[in-house]
This record gives sequence, structure tokens and C-alpha cells, in this order.
Amino acid sequence: MVHSIPPMREGLILKLSCPDKPGLVARIASYASEYQANLVEFNQFTDREKGTFYARLEIDTSGLEIPLDDFKAGFEVLGRSLGAHWHFRHLPYRMRTAVLVTRTDHCLNEILWRATLGEMPVEITSVIGNREDCREIAEKAGLPFHFIEMKEDKESGFREIDAILEAEDVQLVVLARFMQIMPPWMCEKFAGRMINIHHSFLPAFIGANPYRQAYERGVKLIGATCHYVTSELDCGPIIEQEVERVHHHHSVMDLVRLGRDCERSAIARGIRYHVQDRIIIDGVRAIVFPD
Amino acid sequence: MVHSIPPMREGLILKLSCPDKPGLVARIASYASEYQANLVEFNQFTDREKGTFYARLEIDTSGLEIPLDDFKAGFEVLGRSLGAHWHFRHLPYRMRTAVLVTRTDHCLNEILWRATLGEMPVEITSVIGNREDCREIAEKAGLPFHFIEMKEDKESGFREIDAILEAEDVQLVVLARFMQIMPPWMCEKFAGRMINIHHSFLPAFIGANPYRQAYERGVKLIGATCHYVTSELDCGPIIEQEVERVHHHHSVMDLVRLGRDCERSAIARGIRYHVQDRIIIDGVRAIVFPD
Amino acid sequence: MVHSIPPMREGLILKLSCPDKPGLVARIASYASEYQANLVEFNQFTDREKGTFYARLEIDTSGLEIPLDDFKAGFEVLGRSLGAHWHFRHLPYRMRTAVLVTRTDHCLNEILWRATLGEMPVEITSVIGNREDCREIAEKAGLPFHFIEMKEDKESGFREIDAILEAEDVQLVVLARFMQIMPPWMCEKFAGRMINIHHSFLPAFIGANPYRQAYERGVKLIGATCHYVTSELDCGPIIEQEVERVHHHHSVMDLVRLGRDCERSAIARGIRYHVQDRIIIDGVRAIVFPD
Amino acid sequence: MVHSIPPMREGLILKLSCPDKPGLVARIASYASEYQANLVEFNQFTDREKGTFYARLEIDTSGLEIPLDDFKAGFEVLGRSLGAHWHFRHLPYRMRTAVLVTRTDHCLNEILWRATLGEMPVEITSVIGNREDCREIAEKAGLPFHFIEMKEDKESGFREIDAILEAEDVQLVVLARFMQIMPPWMCEKFAGRMINIHHSFLPAFIGANPYRQAYERGVKLIGATCHYVTSELDCGPIIEQEVERVHHHHSVMDLVRLGRDCERSAIARGIRYHVQDRIIIDGVRAIVFPD
Repeated sequence: MVHSIPPMREGLILKLSCPDKPGLVARIASYASEYQANLVEFNQFTDREKGTFYARLEIDTSGLEIPLDDFKAGFEVLGRSLGAHWHFRHLPYRMRTAVLVTRTDHCLNEILWRATLGEMPVEITSVIGNREDCREIAEKAGLPFHFIEMKEDKESGFREIDAILEAEDVQLVVLARFMQIMPPWMCEKFAGRMINIHHSFLPAFIGANPYRQAYERGVKLIGATCHYVTSELDCGPIIEQEVERVHHHHSVMDLVRLGRDCERSAIARGIRYHVQDRIIIDGVRAIVFPD
Repeated sequence: MVHSIPPMREGLILKLSCPDKPGLVARIASYASEYQANLVEFNQFTDREKGTFYARLEIDTSGLEIPLDDFKAGFEVLGRSLGAHWHFRHLPYRMRTAVLVTRTDHCLNEILWRATLGEMPVEITSVIGNREDCREIAEKAGLPFHFIEMKEDKESGFREIDAILEAEDVQLVVLARFMQIMPPWMCEKFAGRMINIHHSFLPAFIGANPYRQAYERGVKLIGATCHYVTSELDCGPIIEQEVERVHHHHSVMDLVRLGRDCERSAIARGIRYHVQDRIIIDGVRAIVFPD
Repeated sequence: MVHSIPPMREGLILKLSCPDKPGLVARIASYASEYQANLVEFNQFTDREKGTFYARLEIDTSGLEIPLDDFKAGFEVLGRSLGAHWHFRHLPYRMRTAVLVTRTDHCLNEILWRATLGEMPVEITSVIGNREDCREIAEKAGLPFHFIEMKEDKESGFREIDAILEAEDVQLVVLARFMQIMPPWMCEKFAGRMINIHHSFLPAFIGANPYRQAYERGVKLIGATCHYVTSELDCGPIIEQEVERVHHHHSVMDLVRLGRDCERSAIARGIRYHVQDRIIIDGVRAIVFPD
Repeated sequence: MVHSIPPMREGLILKLSCPDKPGLVARIASYASEYQANLVEFNQFTDREKGTFYARLEIDTSGLEIPLDDFKAGFEVLGRSLGAHWHFRHLPYRMRTAVLVTRTDHCLNEILWRATLGEMPVEITSVIGNREDCREIAEKAGLPFHFIEMKEDKESGFREIDAILEAEDVQLVVLARFMQIMPPWMCEKFAGRMINIHHSFLPAFIGANPYRQAYERGVKLIGATCHYVTSELDCGPIIEQEVERVHHHHSVMDLVRLGRDCERSAIARGIRYHVQDRIIIDGVRAIVFPD
């Protein structure tokens, strides 16, 4: 069907963090307005405990009086003087995203549906699975499906995956119920660019079989957590969490069923925030400016 | 008990709305930084349909290089040139607030509790009731209670209430389940300064007995709505809404009980946003910058 | 992919309503146990205002000592003596369900996904659309798609739809964002067997463009309502409702996007309850025994 | 103020658990109906994994044909033959409840308010604090306040508390932010009769300073857990949980503030379910039949 999504405006997204001091908003906004760049959205947050300033600017550059590259180059002087880390992204764009799966398909389904709908600026490059279960869904959606066998020595499998990600020029890796533990070198290589959905309300129930754990503990709410992958299992910066109420009469299988809805919802919003460049990672925490 | 609430910083809150155009953030932030006023929090929103820009700035003026009054006076030139409406409020402050009640006391209780806790910068001036039911609660909290008899001719009662509000220099009037319809002249006089809690999820179930209405309609969620009072019944700008799930086995009295929690929650947040100056009213809509 | 859903047990679902009087649970449960039928699940509710008793029994008949038909026939004597309405359904079963659509496909997608997953005992017979937009989705899922042109005289279109429903022996009709008003004769014919998703939190925003209405009213929560279709527009018994928090910065298009998630969630649960025979309709209210 | 709460009916609550087998509902319900006792509410749950049947019956005994004590005595034969554990409670009743506190008063406030409102059948016997902070609130509510000094050797303090609980014939002990770890002998003595509110979403953040822990982990939802106290810290059966969404800009103090609302809500519902005899404890899990 035809989805009439409003086209992304031409422009820039600027994300920045730097030591806090007076006048930061004025200096950054003034630089933009100096050259007739218009702020479409401005989000800012100061972490008082750490003394750090974070900002995200969505900039309409249609009236810009200088070349875009000059505008970005000129910002370097300001950025350096503030001791900032910053990043520009050109609008419009679609982030090249690979989805890794094992058996279950509900997260994959959700991602494909939202990508098709144009709800978020992604381009799914391919689906990579260490089982064949999701091939049909991927191929029906017109996407390449790569089967990777994870043998005893898993290293070769991960090397293969990495090669695909390289070949497809992937910017974001989504672990959509991919049931393999990423090796440290991949966590490092894709730091801040690899998102996982954990099927529990972290930090409760880290590791395997969280729904069984939740059932045995008799919790009254179950949840799902979307987070960046780091080499410490299920401990990366949390992007989004979702919960659902459960009752004593729900079996482990019911928890799995109800949890699926949490997972779909949390991973969809997590990806959305990331590909819209709405997240600044700061150590173990994620600063998220939601839309 | 002793509550250790962090003291409000000295400073200003500036709320502003004006026709949108490029460079607004830069011009406003630069004015502040020019005189060493530091932006502690900056919220901005552009309504593209209407072409209107809204902003709220929390400004630390401890390092200000000029007198506060000069700072405000100087802003006038900028504000007028932008065609803006704006408002400055000095920090710290406590907003003088009167609470109007009839019989039920749960909203009153909630407000008194949060005021005592120092959760929001209010000073409750008195409780005004058209019945005696809430006198005890008010007086136990050390507050004056004014009983106002609403006779056949209600006008004299409202004149009395108005006289109290004048005498106590009240800045905010909260209708905490006050079961009388405010006359148009009071709605007008306290426009944007009178908050009501309606015990339904507006715009459903306007008017009397919303829980009975909800029961008979067989809804699966009930709610409460905190809104500004206007002369059109239950149609003023909505500040906050809350819902609770209900089931077929809940009687009307159960809905009343469950609804109380929605009401307490919605009115508490509504007052909080108002007294923190986080709301800009724009026609029938309320722009709320939540904390 | 392979979904390992636990097989439905063999047995019966009995739904019953009758005037309340003492001993009903004992008499009904005793009848079952008399012939070694085992109650797997027993839900009961007494509406005191109306003096009506409602019950739903899930019965394991694997140990039944008499033929199933005798068991049901024998119940008639008891049922009549209680002045009851009742209904038996044989387990396992899959309810033959047709989905009617117009342009938007998110509800259809959700239904197909959950049907595939085996989350609920449905068999989708076909998708019927008054536009071609959803044909591709239906056909990719291996389902017939019937295009029905709704001409000036809509009656012929509805006759066509009815003919398909008859031909396919449809037990449940789901209006999954079907943007045509059902004629009274169809509402009557499919009373209690036709489910609609309304894209607002009923009874607020009845009729067309509820998201635009919600935007203009400035609500802070939007919702969706799954209800049975009756000849009075959007006024049938409510099965399920869902809400989502929204903010002033959300455009009408954002509300549409956020509302989609409410709609998917509400229609999925609504269908689930219906096809699991968990609903007893009582006038304008739906008694729902959720799982 | 006057609260018009419907009077509890005269009657019995029967809670029962036993090994599952066919015909249980019939046998239990038939026993009641045999003597003209009427089931007002019947809840049942079968744990298939464990093969255990749980039931709660609310019984109107106004038409009972035999003395109440005979009715209960007669049930013993049935109960024993089923290998059941069961418990009868006479209606109406008010459960004698002591509230233990330290400094913070929001949970105490909530409990007192709901008790006053008649929302649940409790009678608060006294407030016991190991600090003086909550004395004023207790005394304003007309309740005795016992100050217990917890010295180096805490044992004497706990003996004192126990003596008060004995003297006041307390049936339920509520730890409403009581910041002392209960000794094993008290946990055992009050097993299934002592409720705690833990200020996190258990099993995450066990132990001290959960809000600081939550802040540092950067979670996006915080919560509170109402559970029975056992000798293993924060590991007893969970009765109720509540969550609230938080953002990166919330400080630890904001989490504390937002968490208070979760705590109030979770402890209020937890107490409600317990005093209405709606909970059957089964090992580490709590079977809760909510109203």
C-alpha cells in the first residue's frame, strides 16, 4: 500500500556534548543563525552531577548562505573551543541496518513493518540468521537472507557476519532475538552501533531464560529492555524499557507471549531513537531525546 | 517530619510565545548570555501548523552583571521586536494557592501532602468549602477553612469566594472536586489561573455523574482530566490526564474508588506543572514542558 | 518458522447467563462432575444491579463417561430450569474469520501475524477490501483477497460482501480499519459476531477523523477502542481499550502513528477474547473474562 | 467527612488449596449450597505445573440453615478428604494492623488515608517508629505512636516491637519504609502476616539505595514492589508491583520523588489484597485474586 510519509527535510542533525559552562546555548544557536540556518528542534540537557552539557539540534539548512561543508568546517573552531565531542548527520538519510535473528520472528516482523511504513529512516540491508527459521519472512519482504552456521568454534561464524556487515556497509546492527553472545571484538567494533533486545526488565533476570526466571520468582510485571551491546552481557546503556502486567495464572508460555509485545514495542522505539540520532551515549547511560 | 528538599535556585523563569522565524533561539539565548545569565533549562517548541514559537527558559542569575530589573527591562526591546508575549517570574517563589472543595477530600489530601513535602512551590492560603466536610482536614493541616453557603441565588456565594481570593492575594485557584459551576465572570477573571479536576477522561462524559455514565457505557478504562477552567463546561485547555483499567465486575462504587487515584495523580501533576510555570496556554490547548 | 504452540485440549466451553439465585455454581459444576467432566477453568460474575449470573466454564471432556452429545443434551434440562441462555463450543476449534479493510494495513498485519503465530484459535478465510491497498499483504500471506467496489449505491457492495461471508462460512467479521459504515441489516445479521476497531478512546471522538479531533482538543492521552458493531455508530459493547500518552509537540500525523500501536494492541486482544469465547454480551456492555 | 462505604455483608471467606483432581469445584460449591450458603464470589486457579488447586470463596451465610460453627465443622470432613489446607474468616471484620516506619511518611500517609476512607477492612492499632519523624502524623490521626530505639544491640528493640504487637493483638504488620532488617525469628513468627514495600522493581536493585542504583544503571522505568517478608532479604513472595517512566534528566532526587508514587500505589494495593483475604501464599509465589 501507499504510505504518505512526510519527506524528511533537508538539513543537519548536530549532536554535541561538552563540559558545562554559561552561554553554551547562545553560542551554538548563534553560530547556526549567523549563516541563516534555522533550528527546527533544539534539545538540551545539563548533567549537574557530572558538569556535562548535551545537546541535539535539528537544523533546516535550506536558507543557508554558505556551502554546507563550510558550515560544518566553521563549526569545528567553536566545537574545539568548547572542548566538545560532536557529530553532524545530513538529512535526509536512511540508516543502513542489518537485522540478526535466530528462531523467533516477532521482533524482525515489527522492524520490517515499521521500516515499510516509513516510520523511521532505515534501510534494511539484509537479515542474518544462525538458523533458517526467518528466511521466509525476510525473502517475502524482498530482503537478502544470509544463513550463518555457528559451529563449535563460533569465531568463524562471527567473522562471516562481520564480513557481510562490511560488504553491505551497515551502519546499525540490530540483534532481534539473536541468541548468540557477541564476541568482545565485535562489541568494540560496533560500539554504539549495535542494539539488542533483552527479554526482561534489566537489570533483573540477566542471562538465559528470563521468562522462566520471572515465572519462578512470581513477579507481577514482566518487561523487555532495548540496550546497546557492550562486552559485559546485558549491561550496556539502556535505551528503552517496556512492561506488561502478569498474574499468577499465567504460565511461562503466557509470559513468553505477553513478553513478545513488550519486546516489539521496546525494540521499535529503541531503533527509532537511534536512527533519528536522538541518543547520546555517556558511559553506561543513554541520553535519549524522544520525539 | 523533616523533608530535605533542594532549595530553588535564585533566578528567573521566562515564558514566551511569538511568530516563528529563524534565529529565535540564538537571539533569546544570546540576550541572556550577554549579561552572564546562565540557562539552566531551555525548552522550545514550534507549532508548524500555526507558525508559532514557544519557549520556556530557566535562568540562573547569580552571575548576572546588571541589576535584575535592568535585565528584564532590556528584554522588552527584544520581546517587542519579535512580536512576543512573554512573562518573567522570580525564583525562588511559592505560588499562593486556594483550594476549593465540596464533600470529597482525596484531592485536597493529595495537594496538602505534596505541599507539605515541598514537592512543588506552593503556599496554600486557605481551603474554601461550600460544605463543612473538609474543615477538619484543613484545620489539622493548620490552614484556615472558609465555609461558604451556596444559596438558591448562588451569586452571593461566588462574590464571597472572590472576596476571600482577593483578600488572600491568591494566584492560583484549584477546584479540588468543587461541585459548583463557576460563573462566567469568575472564569474570565481567573482565566489561566483556575484549575479543575474532572472525574472522567475528557472529552468523554462531560457533566454530572461521569462514573455512572462510564459504568453504563461499559468502558474498559476510566480516567481523570486536569484542565483550566473556562466558561464552557469541562472544555478548557487540558493539562494532564490519567487512566486506570476497569473490568465488568467493578460496580459504580468501584469506579469511584479507582477513579480517585486517577484524580489525585492528574491534579497533582497538573498543579505541579502550573506552579512551576511549565505551561503556556494557547487557545484551547496547553503547551506543557514537563519536568 | 515453526511455532510450538500447545495444542488446545479436547473439550467444551460453556457460556451461560441466567437470573441469579443461590446454588448456581454447585448445580452447574455438579452436573459436569457427575459425568467425570473436569473443569479446567471456571469464571463467574454476578451483576448485583441486574440480578444476573454469568459464567464461563472450560471443560476437559477426555474422561467423560457418556457421549458428548448426551452430555450437552442432558444440560438442557438444567439450563431451562435456571431460565438460562447458554452456548457450548467444542474444543479444539479455529474460528473462521474474515478481515475487512480499506487502505491502512497495520491492524490487518497484526491479525495475520498473531494468527500465524497460533496465538489465538482463528482461521482467516479471506481479506475483503473496498480498495486494492491490502491485496499484496493478503496474498503474500497466502490468503484470498476480494476487492469490492463501493459505488454510489453502497448496497450492492454490502450484498457482495455478505455473499462472500456466506460462501466462506464466516463466523467472525473483523473490521480492521474498514472505512465504510455497515448497513443496519448487516449489523443485525452479524450481531455479536462483528468486531470493529475505532481509532479513539470511545465515547470520546465518535465518527470521522478522531485523531484530528483529539489534536484540536489538545488531549494528553489518545486511545483506541475495540467493540462489537451495532447499528448505532461506534456505540456497541466495548471489548477492549488502549491508550498512549501524547504531548503538545505531536502533530496529527504523530497521533496517527502513535494511535496505530493502540489500535493494533486493542484489536488483537479484542479478537483474542472473542475467539476464545471469553465474552458474554449483555445489552450495551461486554462481560469479558480475560486470560 | 462522612464516607458512605457499603457495609460488608455477613458471611465467610474460605481460602483453600489442595492437590488438583476432577470435581473439586462441584464438591466445594455443593457443600455450601447444601446448607443454603450462597456463593457471592468464586475464584479458582489450577497450577498445572504443580498439580495444585487454589480457590477463594466469598460466602453469604444470611440464609444458612445450620449454625455457622456447624457449617465450618462440617467442612472439615470434606477438607481433610481433599488433603486441603483451608482457612475460614468471618465477615464483617477489620484486620488489626500495625504500621512500622522510620523517617519517610508517604506510605504511612497513604495507608491512613485509605483506612479512614474505609477502602479496606483494616483497623490501625498503632504506628511504631525507630525515629520520631512520623509521631505527629500518627497522633493527628488519633493513633498511638510507639518510639522504639534501635541501639547497637538491635535485638532488644525488636523484642520491644514484638511485645507491642502481642499486646495490641496485631494480625498484620506493615513495614511502610521501615529501614531496619527484621531478624529471622520475627520473619518466621509473622510469616505471611508481614508486608514490606521495597523501593525498586524487584528482583532488580535488592538492598540499600535502590534509587541511586537505578540512576547509575540508567534505567528508563523505576518501580516499587510490595512483598511478604521472609528471612532472605527482599526475596519473599511478591504481591504487587508498580512502575513509572523516567528520563535521563531525572536526578536521584527526582527518582525518589517519582518512586514515592509507585510505593504508595503498590503498598496500598498489596495491603488491600491481603486484608481482603485475596492472597494464597505458595512457596515463593503469591496467588492473588484481585478485586
